[in-house]
Amino acid sequence: MMGAVSATGGYLKGRLRRQDILGAAIEVYAEAGYHGSSLREIAKRAGITHAGLIYYFPTKEALLAAVLEHRDTQDADRERFATTPPGREVLRRFITLAEHNVRNPGVVDLYARLAAEAVAADHPAHEYFQRHYRTARDIALKSFQALADRGELRDGVDPNATAVAFIALMDGLQVQWLTAAEDVDLVGILKSFVDNVLTSPLD
Amino acid sequence: MMGAVSATGGYLKGRLRRQDILGAAIEVYAEAGYHGSSLREIAKRAGITHAGLIYYFPTKEALLAAVLEHRDTQDADRERFATTPPGREVLRRFITLAEHNVRNPGVVDLYARLAAEAVAADHPAHEYFQRHYRTARDIALKSFQALADRGELRDGVDPNATAVAFIALMDGLQVQWLTAAEDVDLVGILKSFVDNVLTSPLD
Repeated sequence: MMGAVSATGGYLKGRLRRQDILGAAIEVYAEAGYHGSSLREIAKRAGITHAGLIYYFPTKEALLAAVLEHRDTQDADRERFATTPPGREVLRRFITLAEHNVRNPGVVDLYARLAAEAVAADHPAHEYFQRHYRTARDIALKSFQALADRGELRDGVDPNATAVAFIALMDGLQVQWLTAAEDVDLVGILKSFVDNVLTSPLD
Repeated sequence: MMGAVSATGGYLKGRLRRQDILGAAIEVYAEAGYHGSSLREIAKRAGITHAGLIYYFPTKEALLAAVLEHRDTQDADRERFATTPPGREVLRRFITLAEHNVRNPGVVDLYARLAAEAVAADHPAHEYFQRHYRTARDIALKSFQALADRGELRDGVDPNATAVAFIALMDGLQVQWLTAAEDVDLVGILKSFVDNVLTSPLD
């Protein structure tokens, strides 16, 4: 019994420690970007030793994939993707997410780099990205499908192709925006894409 | 006089050598992808020593940026972007380029990785990507603008936002397609994007 309690306590403590590290990592990437961020700084910010960090995340890739997974959870919670009924409001929340990203270039940079590296099937973050894309496309598809069912999608617009395009557009715009922010109105172009497939504009 | 002739001969020879190396590099990347490609293999294929290659391209990044620049020239020549009047035909040629890319994942992988790395202003390929995006968007913009002028773009569709979105969509789709080819019909989705903004489909 004591053993079980202690194990549970240990498990919970480990989970909280993991959360501390991920929270610290997201902060550090947001502030310093991909190149300015070190595992040492992340450990320091999480109040843990470098060896302690390695205990939870044995490789840098494992930490990076966990950072992005954690960020997806935060994004989903903040934009209430799971509880908002499919339709215009979900698309509005995607635009709000893009606005959030524009204020956090460090994590967007991390995401774009890791996405390009992780196309290889043997990369530690490969499965994360497959899952991430599928989840994002699925949320978008449900909304475009609901709008099609209600006649709010223009004739001839395919909900599935539009969902895949919407998520790909978001990712592609981020890289161009990181390269030359002055050339790319990320949020405006995303909104204009949505307006183009709807029978009446989003707002 | 002799000196001038010799200098010209040397210059020409150097330019041809550079072309050999770039041609070899594109072949090797197309066959073996980013991770399977080594400078040693590229040198071997170009019939030059490793030291000889380093003479022309002192760093790996310099070679990679030159590979992509050379590929842009090849793409532009093959699709005749400079000599095709702006309009539907140019958009069709972008779709043909996407079909070409689907048959050459190795170079697409190289492009996607370098694009993500080169967002940093001090990266050796940063200027290449700024130029690449501007050129690509400009070609697309001229065509969407010409179509708008002829009333072939749907009401309310902005040629500039559409051009930026079109190029970003191409890039974003490539990364998702490299990650899970079975999930993403790259060419179909690109074509469907164009059809959605035109008053009548592309074909």
